[in-house]
Amino acid sequence: MLERFKVPEDLALKVQEGTLRETVTSVFRHMGVPEDDCHLAADVLVKADMRGVETHGVSNMLRSYVSGYRDGSINPTPNWRIIRETPATANIDSDRGLGIIVTPKAMDIAIEKAKNVGVGMVTIQNGRHLGMASYHAMMALEHDMIGVCMTSCPPSVLPTFGAEPRLGTNPIALAAPAGEEPPFVFDAATSTVAGNKLGLARRLGNNLMGGWVADTDGVPIMEEVEPPRPGHQGGAGQASSFLLPVGSTREMGSHKGYGMSCIVDILGGILSGGGYGIHPGRPNFGHYVAAYSIEAFMDTAEFKRTMDEWIRMLESTKPAKGHDRVIYPGRLEAEETAKREAEGIPFHPEVMDWFKDICSELSIPYNLTNS
Amino acid sequence: MLERFKVPEDLALKVQEGTLRETVTSVFRHMGVPEDDCHLAADVLVKADMRGVETHGVSNMLRSYVSGYRDGSINPTPNWRIIRETPATANIDSDRGLGIIVTPKAMDIAIEKAKNVGVGMVTIQNGRHLGMASYHAMMALEHDMIGVCMTSCPPSVLPTFGAEPRLGTNPIALAAPAGEEPPFVFDAATSTVAGNKLGLARRLGNNLMGGWVADTDGVPIMEEVEPPRPGHQGGAGQASSFLLPVGSTREMGSHKGYGMSCIVDILGGILSGGGYGIHPGRPNFGHYVAAYSIEAFMDTAEFKRTMDEWIRMLESTKPAKGHDRVIYPGRLEAEETAKREAEGIPFHPEVMDWFKDICSELSIPYNLTNS
Repeated sequence: MLERFKVPEDLALKVQEGTLRETVTSVFRHMGVPEDDCHLAADVLVKADMRGVETHGVSNMLRSYVSGYRDGSINPTPNWRIIRETPATANIDSDRGLGIIVTPKAMDIAIEKAKNVGVGMVTIQNGRHLGMASYHAMMALEHDMIGVCMTSCPPSVLPTFGAEPRLGTNPIALAAPAGEEPPFVFDAATSTVAGNKLGLARRLGNNLMGGWVADTDGVPIMEEVEPPRPGHQGGAGQASSFLLPVGSTREMGSHKGYGMSCIVDILGGILSGGGYGIHPGRPNFGHYVAAYSIEAFMDTAEFKRTMDEWIRMLESTKPAKGHDRVIYPGRLEAEETAKREAEGIPFHPEVMDWFKDICSELSIPYNLTNS
Repeated sequence: MLERFKVPEDLALKVQEGTLRETVTSVFRHMGVPEDDCHLAADVLVKADMRGVETHGVSNMLRSYVSGYRDGSINPTPNWRIIRETPATANIDSDRGLGIIVTPKAMDIAIEKAKNVGVGMVTIQNGRHLGMASYHAMMALEHDMIGVCMTSCPPSVLPTFGAEPRLGTNPIALAAPAGEEPPFVFDAATSTVAGNKLGLARRLGNNLMGGWVADTDGVPIMEEVEPPRPGHQGGAGQASSFLLPVGSTREMGSHKGYGMSCIVDILGGILSGGGYGIHPGRPNFGHYVAAYSIEAFMDTAEFKRTMDEWIRMLESTKPAKGHDRVIYPGRLEAEETAKREAEGIPFHPEVMDWFKDICSELSIPYNLTNS
């Protein structure tokens, strides 16, 4: 992630992984979530923080999940079930279960199918937020498979040439194992930035870069601006700007970001039978996960050797003027994980205040920074 | 495509689809390609022209295919074969066969597998150029399936923060059927523009837009520039600029275009067992096609109804200031096909001159503009 989204060193309070995991598990327990699911949910959130993906970690997501459980929009004990199935595919009704809990179970099904017939592909309708999409994609790695995850979200992004948000930030994640190098892990919104980054920018007081948003007439703003309130169709407050698809302007290729976002709406939304982001009466998420068995195509050991070679080829690229190295998707997150295992996870004081409040409210012992 | 890539009306010579198809078929016949394959090859090229995708049509590709057959790098009678197979997957050794001929056969296999188990996925190693990627993806439509196609190409694109091209333009195509509306067809390079667009810009004398290329130090050029000779690792001539991944700069999201390009290298290249674009001794292409049966996930009629509704939702978006409509991927190509069916395909005189020469050389009657 961009340096500008890191919590400043002098403000950061460091929290250890184990302690954070315990506290988060307790919060889910108090929401009425079954014990195993509490641990799973904490794993998804804490792994995001360990990888440096704070946009989808504890600090940015947990409070919204708590709100969702409290207002009834998220079901703590969903009766999720497969509503259609073939040897390579399944479609799941998630029964309003939180995506960070139901999606790993869908990915387990996809992995099992890929073991049997080479590929497994599962759609999920009536879902809720699934956290860091790459968590689910990465589940395939230990099975020597390539994992994929997409999620069709409520609208906040303009189509190319449009002045109203009609698509979600609709992220795409793909993970592929290497041999000695950390796995390839791509995970990105199809908008210029993830919607959560606008929230983080607000919290950290950072400006938005040119090309990230358009004004309310749909005209891309190409110079740096102060963080606005993001526009959400039907949301509260007056929108002052809207997110753009990656590519920013038609000339620079925003139709490509727009098209990739459409693909996520089709595979995660429409193909799940649950409709798409802006579908009337659908304040939810549609998910898509897939697993491809490497051995179904070629020798797995050779695949991993070639991945290592390819990663080293990319990272040995001569750096551009002003930069000191070229990296591949997954490198920074692996480095950040090692660093946070040693030093803890840096949180903004505002996040710690929220934790103190929620722990006190739920009678959970607060010990995040005294360990 | 951008208006700037259209052949100017006053220069254009109009050619009828049927006549063009006959002439192109004859050219392949003279290259020693079996009769059925000649018709298939002509279909792939002419369909690109009919859809207005001149970058991948007759004018831009046929001469390079003729060169490839003549210098022996393309095999006119490949003994392509499946080298590994499971119920949902296959891997094919293309035996240096031209991708526009072998890839449709791979897609037939993927479709058959999707009929049997819900999904079919086929990789192709040792391949050659596959033309317009969406041709292969669109083959799934008549079977009520979603089609996907990717191709890992020789390097011409910089990784984010890099000053040497290490990735191909690596396009991604996905086609999904609708009901009454034309199908959704996305097909785009993961670079800011397709490599062929630089050649077209040269021919038409158009400038390149800001954000499309970097200088030889890897620094993105953000203002409009004259069309340069594109940089190809190990290619002839001194490179004066390199293509950028979509997103253009790290701040605007070039790591997303770079990551999507990596995905194509992994699925089309590494997973085919044939290595990736810049792999030493690999002056070829690796392909990936897939078909997903809609009925394996949900009721097909409902999917198509929702697709129509979703398309109308996108196209009814309030247009941005300065624009008169919002479209979805596939709309312009459907309109262009209708127009070209009525009026013929506009070709630049330089293309017609090449046709006159090659027809004379191969003793094929030249009648493209006298019909």
